[in-house]
Amino acid sequence: MYFEDFTLGQIFRLEPISLTEAEIRQFAESYDPLPIHTEPDFAASSIFGGIIASGFHTLSAVWGRWIRLNKLGTEVIGGLGIDYLRWTAPVRPGDQLRAEVEISELIPSSKGGRGIVGMKVSVSNQHGESVLVAQVKGLMKGRHQ
Amino acid sequence: MYFEDFTLGQIFRLEPISLTEAEIRQFAESYDPLPIHTEPDFAASSIFGGIIASGFHTLSAVWGRWIRLNKLGTEVIGGLGIDYLRWTAPVRPGDQLRAEVEISELIPSSKGGRGIVGMKVSVSNQHGESVLVAQVKGLMKGRHQ
Repeated sequence: MYFEDFTLGQIFRLEPISLTEAEIRQFAESYDPLPIHTEPDFAASSIFGGIIASGFHTLSAVWGRWIRLNKLGTEVIGGLGIDYLRWTAPVRPGDQLRAEVEISELIPSSKGGRGIVGMKVSVSNQHGESVLVAQVKGLMKGRHQ
Repeated sequence: MYFEDFTLGQIFRLEPISLTEAEIRQFAESYDPLPIHTEPDFAASSIFGGIIASGFHTLSAVWGRWIRLNKLGTEVIGGLGIDYLRWTAPVRPGDQLRAEVEISELIPSSKGGRGIVGMKVSVSNQHGESVLVAQVKGLMKGRHQ
C-alpha cells in the first residue's frame, strides 16, 4: 500500500501468534540471553514461575506477522523508529497472541511523493490481557513520486 | 548488578557488532520479510543500493551484546519498555557497529527493594555515523529485598 492508500484509524487484525518454549529460548540465546528467557529452572523459581519470552522476541514476531499480511512491501522506503513501547504482561510459551495494527498517524512529506505512517501495534493474550503496545513509524512511497 | 550498583551517567562500551548478509536475510525471513531486507536484486535498485538490516535486527543484536556483557542477569525482574527509538542510518552487511549503553535514569521503587533502570543505547558505524539511538527501561532487583 502506498502512502495515500492508508486512512487514519484503519485497523488490520493479524493472524494469531504463538511462540514455543524452544523458539523463545532460541531467540533469547542470540538476542537476549537472560536466564528468565533461557533457563527453565531459574525461571521456575522467578516471580513468573517459568520461561517468558524476550520482549524483543514478542515485538519481532508480531512485526513479522504484520509484514506477512502483505500490506507493506516494495512501497516501504525505510523504518524510522519506535515512538513508545510497553511490555504490559509476560508472554509465555503457547500463549495465543492476537495483534492488531492501527494506522495512528499519517504525515505527508513537505516534498510530496511520500509520507510517514504511524502504526500502533496492540497485542493481547488468550485471557484478553494486553501484553504489548507500541507505535512504530515508517516512511512510505506515494503513488506519484 | 543490582539496582543500587548503577550510577547515573555510567557508560558501558560493547564489543563490536557486525551482521553478515546471510544473518540479515535470515532474521528478516522470520521477523521483517520486506524485500529491502530479503531480496538482493530489489535492494540493489532501491535508494540504499543493496540489502540493509531490519531495524528490529539491529536492535536485537545490540541488545544481545549488552546482555552478554553480563552486567544484567538474575537481577533483572523484567523489561518494561522502550521510551523512544530512532533508526538514524541504514545498517549494511559487514558494517562494524560500535555500541554503548548509558545509565540514563534510575528510579527507586516507592515500595523499596527494587527500581527502574533507564538504558540509553547508542550505536554508530565504522564511519562514525549514528545508526540507532534508543532508551530501554527495565525493572531490577535491589540488594535488600
